[in-house]
Amino acid sequence: MIAPIAVSMGDPAGIGPETVAKAWAQRHAQGLAPFFAVGDVRAIEKVWDGPVERVSDPADAAALFDTALPVLSIQDAGDIVPGQPDVDGARCALHALELAVGLTRSGAAGALVTGPVSKAQLYQIGFTDPGQTEFVAERCGISRENTVMMLAGPSLRVVPITTHVALASVAEMLSIELIVAKARVTARGLTKNFGIEHPRLALAGFNPHAGEQGAMGREEIDILRPAIEELRAEGIDIVGPLPADTMFHPRARARFDVALCCYHDQALIPLKTLHFDDGVNITLGLPIVRTSPDHGTAFDIAGRNLAEAGATIAAIQLAASAAARRAALG
Amino acid sequence: MIAPIAVSMGDPAGIGPETVAKAWAQRHAQGLAPFFAVGDVRAIEKVWDGPVERVSDPADAAALFDTALPVLSIQDAGDIVPGQPDVDGARCALHALELAVGLTRSGAAGALVTGPVSKAQLYQIGFTDPGQTEFVAERCGISRENTVMMLAGPSLRVVPITTHVALASVAEMLSIELIVAKARVTARGLTKNFGIEHPRLALAGFNPHAGEQGAMGREEIDILRPAIEELRAEGIDIVGPLPADTMFHPRARARFDVALCCYHDQALIPLKTLHFDDGVNITLGLPIVRTSPDHGTAFDIAGRNLAEAGATIAAIQLAASAAARRAALG
Repeated sequence: MIAPIAVSMGDPAGIGPETVAKAWAQRHAQGLAPFFAVGDVRAIEKVWDGPVERVSDPADAAALFDTALPVLSIQDAGDIVPGQPDVDGARCALHALELAVGLTRSGAAGALVTGPVSKAQLYQIGFTDPGQTEFVAERCGISRENTVMMLAGPSLRVVPITTHVALASVAEMLSIELIVAKARVTARGLTKNFGIEHPRLALAGFNPHAGEQGAMGREEIDILRPAIEELRAEGIDIVGPLPADTMFHPRARARFDVALCCYHDQALIPLKTLHFDDGVNITLGLPIVRTSPDHGTAFDIAGRNLAEAGATIAAIQLAASAAARRAALG
Repeated sequence: MIAPIAVSMGDPAGIGPETVAKAWAQRHAQGLAPFFAVGDVRAIEKVWDGPVERVSDPADAAALFDTALPVLSIQDAGDIVPGQPDVDGARCALHALELAVGLTRSGAAGALVTGPVSKAQLYQIGFTDPGQTEFVAERCGISRENTVMMLAGPSLRVVPITTHVALASVAEMLSIELIVAKARVTARGLTKNFGIEHPRLALAGFNPHAGEQGAMGREEIDILRPAIEELRAEGIDIVGPLPADTMFHPRARARFDVALCCYHDQALIPLKTLHFDDGVNITLGLPIVRTSPDHGTAFDIAGRNLAEAGATIAAIQLAASAAARRAALG
């Protein structure tokens, strides 16, 4: 039995509070392991009528979980108006994240699920990391280079090797070292978090048709193939570079456990085409389990009871199963 | 009633002949309009046991179509060995294409469907066009710039604005003029071929998250937005630039009739993820209807009775409906 899972609510004016509450309402139907929300309890009360119970210790959350949504409530977020983010909300979101990371690091929480934050608001209060992932990595004492963002849906897992950068910068950022490092963390992460003993990796080509032997770009020849050779020499099962357009249909997906992609949209287009409502972001390479629903704050629909909890539920389920696997591995 | 459709078989050693024969075998179940194959009749006989009837005039094909696959057989392709392409096969494929284009241009055939060819073999016999599309355009007296390759599946249509070029070259190829030209042809083509009176176009961003106001690349600001403004001023219904990763899930796809994409994989990844087996390539901007199944020669499975005819059937169906619409428009 893992300790209760800490779910940071993210921005109090976004859909995070609503999705956490809706996930709790489906705890039986979805077989969810006990979790508790971390954030300003009023953010939930603004958008949801169900039972809420404040806790001060995660250990109390498990006993309560059947009858009420346990909330570890933290500092006042100021006036909370769903759909209208402000810097007070950003401070609250950051505080919640920090607390949830600490509880998970200490073992008081069994895993960490992070709700969506507003980067624009966070930057206004002096937040300097590109996103929550880097913040969590730093608090865990792991360098960014040794963590991997994986997006996982029921029928596809993808890893973007480069992420939030201009597409024109990708070619110069790709290197043999970067691909090898990301692939290593990915392979280990699939074993630790998903229980896949011999993970099968597939590397997408950078150019159309994977460059056709250099006729349309040399990145495959100069960077991707040497990286694959190095990884194979280490015993990692990896194929590629594959033409990216023909590797995501159902029969093709069955041949690998994860697709490593050269850039953001190459990974995210197939993932969100297939799993827009149930994609989960999981950070590999950390000493803790960290997942998050693969969507943003959706301020445009916040407070209108329109948010879907599917991705939050999937994130809690994956966090629970990954934490249980890690506990079993010891 | 349109004239019979000309289906060039493509490379005689590829899966073209088998898929044409299998499509004919499903003519009743799929409600296919009469068509005839153009190519070396022996290529079909090598891989299929069904009834074949040679014709010398497309007009004879309609009467025959119910009882046998009509074939306008042309020059000897040399020794045909499925899965083993050679230059004789390439000459035969080119001859078949040329003849089929001519018959369609003259009106003797109602539309053109082209089977898959081997570009490597064609280049060996002096073929200088990038592919069949450009050859057909030239024979129709249309400049390449004024034609558009659209890929169409049952739930998604996409147009790659740039196609078979290194990804690093795309940014410099993108221009306001190019996007405007492609969008104009696309909008007209949707009306002429698909009967969509007021086509809704969506333009995908070039960078992740469509650049986030320039934070990750300026192509959206410098090129895509001005192109959209120009098109709107002409009365074309176009939205964007949209973040490419969130525009292809089912609810998002329902909002547009076609996605214009900046580069090959941005268009082809979602299309083939969803419609690997039934995607159709249609060339817009031509005086004739031209479609083709969206797959290659598949030499690795040729002659083994493993080829699926779904894409060929879809290509024939789209050719027939587009030709009927054009005939009705006059």
